[in-house]
Amino acid sequence: MIYVIGTGPGDFKYITPDALEALNKCEIISGYEKYINLIKNNFPDKIFKIYSMRQEIKRCEDALKLSRENKIIGLISGGDSGIYGMAGLILELANNNDKIKIIPGLTSAVCAAGILGAPLTNDFAVISLSDLLTPIEIINRRLEILSAGDFVTCIYNPGSKTRTENFKTACEIMLKYKSPDTPCGYVKNISRPGEFCEIMKLSEIKNLKPDMNYLIIIGNSQTYIKNNKLITPRGYIKKGA
Amino acid sequence: MIYVIGTGPGDFKYITPDALEALNKCEIISGYEKYINLIKNNFPDKIFKIYSMRQEIKRCEDALKLSRENKIIGLISGGDSGIYGMAGLILELANNNDKIKIIPGLTSAVCAAGILGAPLTNDFAVISLSDLLTPIEIINRRLEILSAGDFVTCIYNPGSKTRTENFKTACEIMLKYKSPDTPCGYVKNISRPGEFCEIMKLSEIKNLKPDMNYLIIIGNSQTYIKNNKLITPRGYIKKGA
Repeated sequence: MIYVIGTGPGDFKYITPDALEALNKCEIISGYEKYINLIKNNFPDKIFKIYSMRQEIKRCEDALKLSRENKIIGLISGGDSGIYGMAGLILELANNNDKIKIIPGLTSAVCAAGILGAPLTNDFAVISLSDLLTPIEIINRRLEILSAGDFVTCIYNPGSKTRTENFKTACEIMLKYKSPDTPCGYVKNISRPGEFCEIMKLSEIKNLKPDMNYLIIIGNSQTYIKNNKLITPRGYIKKGA
Repeated sequence: MIYVIGTGPGDFKYITPDALEALNKCEIISGYEKYINLIKNNFPDKIFKIYSMRQEIKRCEDALKLSRENKIIGLISGGDSGIYGMAGLILELANNNDKIKIIPGLTSAVCAAGILGAPLTNDFAVISLSDLLTPIEIINRRLEILSAGDFVTCIYNPGSKTRTENFKTACEIMLKYKSPDTPCGYVKNISRPGEFCEIMKLSEIKNLKPDMNYLIIIGNSQTYIKNNKLITPRGYIKKGA
């Protein structure tokens, strides 16, 4: 049995009872070092299998092998395992007899939105700027489309040590369609030590040098700032509902 | 003090410890009837203020008034309060002295994705088909853009008793750009009595008559079905990571 578990953005207060129950059932908990470290001390009796980045296929193959030997495995992802996490890959590699259950988790866009205000109250999109697996041309084309369509946009993986230019290019693309005054914001290290957030304009955020610990939200033409919170109105006040 | 709390899709196992702690602190819990009923029995000592649909402004104004009288109020939304919930409206109506804390919740797109497989493993968008607050022309234009851009799309509020045509029109728009064989699926009554899901093709799902209790996910050109699960690959296998 494999539980594919989203452990939320960091703090234990964001792990659902469903995820906690699944973690407790596991004999072996497997995942990327950073996410294992966030939960390890709370499960002193478990065996942990720690993997580095770019070992995703091996991580899933090992989990499938152990599960076929009747072990109960927890394959964890930070946030939700279905959003840039391990849920897709394990289902791609599994066969019809493998028992796999996906346990949803709080993804960082939702947590970041609540910290910044309410920027996702209307239609929005989620995009990753990591070009490890998706060609940068496709990422940039999607950014063009979302900007032309006036979507509020949540940006995952905006940068890393070696990937420093994608976010600046993304902002330049968005600035072709969106006002430089478009309100936006970021949260760094959501619910982890060093959590920090800031609200600013699109023309300002383009100078940010974000790493993998940033979640960035870019507003649309309706988004505004009130009491230092980002708000995208749903339309109740305009309608007088 | 107002806690704006996302109570998840229904079952208590999806309410985070953070949300539960906030609910326990409240003297008065306020919300739409359907969401109050899902949690009421677990909080026998609380005062509940139950509202119908289209009383959203009154609901927020009442909460602000009570909070200014030093009451502790919980304003609840199903799922996450920032995604088509009450977080935006309360921040719009609040002034700088009002104390408001947004407590994130599991939104139904994330839960539905886990039930259907892993359709959101790559970039995706979230759209509501309710034209109560957003003109149908804008909704349909956004659908055109998302389909042309090959985004996996999560559809909230696909229909209601009086609103039966928007979903069919949405499918017709998507079929202009997407293959009729595009894999998609829906989950009805997520984590509530009568939960039911189905995976099918875009050409088939257009005949569905969904109501407000459906969450629908339409795949992109990469989405496929394996072992009766929807999968949108992240790209690990293609890359050989």
